[in-house]
Amino acid sequence: MSGSVFGNRFKISTWGESHGEGIGVVVDGCPSGLFINEEYIQTYLNRRKPGQSEFSTPRKEADKVRILSGVFEGRTTGTPISLVVFNENQRSSDYSQIASYYRPGHADYTYDQKYGFRDYRGGGRSSGRETTGRVAAGAIAGAILKELGVAVYAYTKSIGPVSIDYQKCRKDLALKSPLVMPDLEASARAEEYILKQKAEENSVGGVIECIVTGMPAGIGEPVFDKLDAALAKAIMSIGAIKGVEIGDGFEVAKHTGFENNDSFFYDEDQNLTKLSNHSGGIVGGISDGFEIILRAAVKPTASIGRSQKTVNKSKENVDVQIGGRHDPIIVPRAVVVVESMVAITLVDYLFQGMTSRLDKIKEFYK
Amino acid sequence: MSGSVFGNRFKISTWGESHGEGIGVVVDGCPSGLFINEEYIQTYLNRRKPGQSEFSTPRKEADKVRILSGVFEGRTTGTPISLVVFNENQRSSDYSQIASYYRPGHADYTYDQKYGFRDYRGGGRSSGRETTGRVAAGAIAGAILKELGVAVYAYTKSIGPVSIDYQKCRKDLALKSPLVMPDLEASARAEEYILKQKAEENSVGGVIECIVTGMPAGIGEPVFDKLDAALAKAIMSIGAIKGVEIGDGFEVAKHTGFENNDSFFYDEDQNLTKLSNHSGGIVGGISDGFEIILRAAVKPTASIGRSQKTVNKSKENVDVQIGGRHDPIIVPRAVVVVESMVAITLVDYLFQGMTSRLDKIKEFYK
Amino acid sequence: MSGSVFGNRFKISTWGESHGEGIGVVVDGCPSGLFINEEYIQTYLNRRKPGQSEFSTPRKEADKVRILSGVFEGRTTGTPISLVVFNENQRSSDYSQIASYYRPGHADYTYDQKYGFRDYRGGGRSSGRETTGRVAAGAIAGAILKELGVAVYAYTKSIGPVSIDYQKCRKDLALKSPLVMPDLEASARAEEYILKQKAEENSVGGVIECIVTGMPAGIGEPVFDKLDAALAKAIMSIGAIKGVEIGDGFEVAKHTGFENNDSFFYDEDQNLTKLSNHSGGIVGGISDGFEIILRAAVKPTASIGRSQKTVNKSKENVDVQIGGRHDPIIVPRAVVVVESMVAITLVDYLFQGMTSRLDKIKEFYK
Amino acid sequence: MSGSVFGNRFKISTWGESHGEGIGVVVDGCPSGLFINEEYIQTYLNRRKPGQSEFSTPRKEADKVRILSGVFEGRTTGTPISLVVFNENQRSSDYSQIASYYRPGHADYTYDQKYGFRDYRGGGRSSGRETTGRVAAGAIAGAILKELGVAVYAYTKSIGPVSIDYQKCRKDLALKSPLVMPDLEASARAEEYILKQKAEENSVGGVIECIVTGMPAGIGEPVFDKLDAALAKAIMSIGAIKGVEIGDGFEVAKHTGFENNDSFFYDEDQNLTKLSNHSGGIVGGISDGFEIILRAAVKPTASIGRSQKTVNKSKENVDVQIGGRHDPIIVPRAVVVVESMVAITLVDYLFQGMTSRLDKIKEFYK
Repeated sequence: MSGSVFGNRFKISTWGESHGEGIGVVVDGCPSGLFINEEYIQTYLNRRKPGQSEFSTPRKEADKVRILSGVFEGRTTGTPISLVVFNENQRSSDYSQIASYYRPGHADYTYDQKYGFRDYRGGGRSSGRETTGRVAAGAIAGAILKELGVAVYAYTKSIGPVSIDYQKCRKDLALKSPLVMPDLEASARAEEYILKQKAEENSVGGVIECIVTGMPAGIGEPVFDKLDAALAKAIMSIGAIKGVEIGDGFEVAKHTGFENNDSFFYDEDQNLTKLSNHSGGIVGGISDGFEIILRAAVKPTASIGRSQKTVNKSKENVDVQIGGRHDPIIVPRAVVVVESMVAITLVDYLFQGMTSRLDKIKEFYK
Repeated sequence: MSGSVFGNRFKISTWGESHGEGIGVVVDGCPSGLFINEEYIQTYLNRRKPGQSEFSTPRKEADKVRILSGVFEGRTTGTPISLVVFNENQRSSDYSQIASYYRPGHADYTYDQKYGFRDYRGGGRSSGRETTGRVAAGAIAGAILKELGVAVYAYTKSIGPVSIDYQKCRKDLALKSPLVMPDLEASARAEEYILKQKAEENSVGGVIECIVTGMPAGIGEPVFDKLDAALAKAIMSIGAIKGVEIGDGFEVAKHTGFENNDSFFYDEDQNLTKLSNHSGGIVGGISDGFEIILRAAVKPTASIGRSQKTVNKSKENVDVQIGGRHDPIIVPRAVVVVESMVAITLVDYLFQGMTSRLDKIKEFYK
Repeated sequence: MSGSVFGNRFKISTWGESHGEGIGVVVDGCPSGLFINEEYIQTYLNRRKPGQSEFSTPRKEADKVRILSGVFEGRTTGTPISLVVFNENQRSSDYSQIASYYRPGHADYTYDQKYGFRDYRGGGRSSGRETTGRVAAGAIAGAILKELGVAVYAYTKSIGPVSIDYQKCRKDLALKSPLVMPDLEASARAEEYILKQKAEENSVGGVIECIVTGMPAGIGEPVFDKLDAALAKAIMSIGAIKGVEIGDGFEVAKHTGFENNDSFFYDEDQNLTKLSNHSGGIVGGISDGFEIILRAAVKPTASIGRSQKTVNKSKENVDVQIGGRHDPIIVPRAVVVVESMVAITLVDYLFQGMTSRLDKIKEFYK
Repeated sequence: MSGSVFGNRFKISTWGESHGEGIGVVVDGCPSGLFINEEYIQTYLNRRKPGQSEFSTPRKEADKVRILSGVFEGRTTGTPISLVVFNENQRSSDYSQIASYYRPGHADYTYDQKYGFRDYRGGGRSSGRETTGRVAAGAIAGAILKELGVAVYAYTKSIGPVSIDYQKCRKDLALKSPLVMPDLEASARAEEYILKQKAEENSVGGVIECIVTGMPAGIGEPVFDKLDAALAKAIMSIGAIKGVEIGDGFEVAKHTGFENNDSFFYDEDQNLTKLSNHSGGIVGGISDGFEIILRAAVKPTASIGRSQKTVNKSKENVDVQIGGRHDPIIVPRAVVVVESMVAITLVDYLFQGMTSRLDKIKEFYK
């Protein structure tokens, strides 16, 4: 649990600081025979790349990925896949002053408490840039899921006061919204809200929703390794996330058992279905084969230009204004990070799921 | 990740079914020299024991714990501690009919999908009774935390429409409330609400809040093993939990960075403090030494007497009424389960935290 | 890595001291649908039970196993299987004096160094009695392997100066030898040797050889989790083992590449075979489908009646004679422990082996 | 256990193929504050670098290491350390023909069985080149051990028929021997032996011995995670190793308890010592504070020019001669790999060892 390794069968190990040589990930446990290349992985990285609209930092980062191992003649070999993105455009100068005080909302203080000192350049390892490795690995997990008929789709559900309804949104529209909000009217209102806060050198938060379709039933472990527990950890491990919900989430606290229970029934074609999906596709920690639905609360960007109170290393109370080029909101860029963490977790569990029944194991080795 | 083992340094392995021989846990990694005995562990188990008020099942279970290993002359020896609670009063007859259909809101269907069949007696391993092992291990973790000056305190924050304010509640009052709600006026209203739903053979949900005090700063791992991520998994692994929040949780989605950032400052005595604690005591996955605050959403009891639609094994749509003696609400009995999972997680992380700095490691081995 | 948990997919957690309440194991990750019962598991335990000949301690232990969870209507349910053997006949008096000094060859000193004190009754957790839990779990692993067509067979290869040749031995004869040595003439000579040493209040060591047949090719992980590396750890984790070999083992140091390489060839029926098996069925950490062969060196019983020099807690040099009823040799009783650890490891790896190829994973989930 | 990740607290993840882009390792769990740089790590890599004498392949590889993360202003920050060696001089042509048949003694066949196909260029991931990542990580572990006063020293104990005595060897002489054999007279005889075999296009094996001094007593876990068991796995995970011994190893099989037990005694200065060290510094899986001694059997290089029988993919029996530039012996280059694996394992266990006693944990957090 030393911190930067995730997963059991499908195991990823990330490394890299915001202003170091680069960011990377080693994927161990990827099966042989998966066709992947740098162009494909790049499509995932491009979704979290900054500088794509006025709603993200103007910082330009190519985030060009390179595959250093584990792929031979276009296919994975079953050995570790090392992916790296070398850093560019490191204006450390932007950050030098930060060494002297603790930025509110950032991990400067806790890192110093834990390690005795820190790489203060752009937050070092605690920077959102760390998620680059997650997304590169997420691209590989996504490719595996596609082969198994599982699709993971995340989008911006709410920003500040603007929220959309999952039933009403049209997934394809997410691409048309700079906020990845699949309801263009709502997206327009959210954009307005963000620009208003941005003008005041402030930032905003929001909620990301993620839907998984095509998940087989029976995946997940009882007790401690419940599928929803693993997803909660995976999502909560993303820097700015402060809350996670499965299905109806916190709403269940206000519901009665009769309202909350999902009834099964056979439709006219004798297919088993459910009259509702309050559980969000996971019951007793195990998938039921219906849509998995989860939400994550994303806090507003901690870095804001506006003056804030904090302390410096000379033990003085000071007012600071965080320089540098910041995202007025993290949510849109975090959507693909959520998708990636969900995909990585599902692959790990689908692999684990192969050993739950002796009859299937015998058939496999027959 | 086979499911029933939790933790890395402080590792617990639970076993047992609702109507099997018993329920137990093996605690591996408990340091030597901790004074514990059966009486002490029993005080934790008694808090989750049923039959203590009209708000829990009338089922009587002694839940008497026995220590089978790892303790010699009153102290832990450093070897695995095996704790067992033998089952009594198993009225399997109550459950026999359940074998034929899938109870809405229960894991009957998902277990069958995963394993091909299931121990249908009282939910078998998916029964809330599984938490007995967690609480027994939680008692040991709690004893270790006490030695380290860390206190974990959970209580019922809301039930249905009735919610209380953390600032206004008085911890000691929790003992006076059958709902473990430290605001007796609110508790009375909640009791009324539960009895009304119970009369309609229905059940209710709620929210549990947990506060950790005395936690050292610098505990938690960056990236995937963030302390809040681990707590989220620990809490979400409890059967009926559908959502987890740290600090302001989902509220952050509506806040701005200026509102959400916690400013540091030195008080007149030159002690470092914070002007707010929106982060809930964890930043960048690492504790900051202030109160850790988390909340868990508990769904209403799935077992209700009221008639519900579902399917049976003959592939028919049927109406069922769940017999047996159920809890109209799980929340009060789950409070100590939340405390236990938090305590177990914190011990694991405090042990891990000892190796983050070379200077401290050198001092330890000097 | 807290010490008493072994395995990844098929995970066992053992507990118990020599003179505590009992010894047990929790098996997590056993697939559903395996038929097992107490009688079957008992057959394994009986093989390590003492008091069966003049070559083991006269101590009588029933070692009666009980299944406390994970089995329903004769089949495993996929949930943790808790197995326990309650202790009887604990003549602690035999051991009380031991508290005052460190027995040569025993872990008394290292346990005190690690934990500050120890359960000195019969060695506590460091007693050979700890292996009871391994063997109970080994019985379950053995049952799974049988379903998959894999057989694990261990026997006594040498005792002191008496050694037998794998090619010449007849497996079935092992049952006829009180030393589990499948060459009765050699067994007779070994028995004589042991009795001679026993008469001088001394003890002897030996070598156990283990053969695995029916193992599929392609099982094992490259680099750190090589199948032979995992087997080496599993075997070396047995108390008295001081060396492990795979295939030709230490002999390879004296061989040339031309002698040591195993040539493949197709026989007249076009079946792939090998002209030799110096590798012992594992190459590059992965099984090649031929016999897996390994050997373990077992040290002589540390407890001997003969007078030995050591120190006591009053920091004095003293001469001691270990009282109690000891085994003049551990080897025969350890044979089933070796078989058990090999079986547990193979099951873990066969489960892991199901995820190495995408095409097979897709087929599984089709 | 997906294969390329090793360790628990001090966790390393290696990647890379013989003829891919490069070889690397990510070290997670290294404490903050350790001074390291590329020059220091290079000194370890240079010890396994080929082309340094007529006893290793003439293949020239710079093996220049680069630190990509985890180090800031010369010190480790506590975050993952990514180390990479980019490959050069990849004469894939040497290996193209290998794709068509299975080299005796190599993992070609087992990799194909496991993954369905393989990166056949120079053995891909199964190449000895994989150990580059282990040695780079070993350099970091070695630096940590030095800070803790622990020294790991390995050398060539035997080659073919030539063996040296640990008591007689002079460690410093190892540097003067091209075979890392600290007895120059024996080294000369071994060199002669190797050249004779090399002339016949053959290869030879040997034994590496490793001595650890300064190890604190009380390190290691009981039962499955015994320190010797972990070392056995670590060593056996090195490609060409076929056997591992601790202390007297296989010799114990021929000894009596009286001969094998190590007696404690207090010398005139009242220091606790032992009259012998047959146990090799580990008893009951826990270090006793005396020298740790282990040995590893290294098989002769599988690649030999001499003609050998094998099969090709057209299912024909063929005679092959392995082209390319091979090591006539692996032993000398493997010495630093053994040292590295031992160092990595010891660091992992020293970190684990910090949590065995409550009194010490309390002191740490005071």
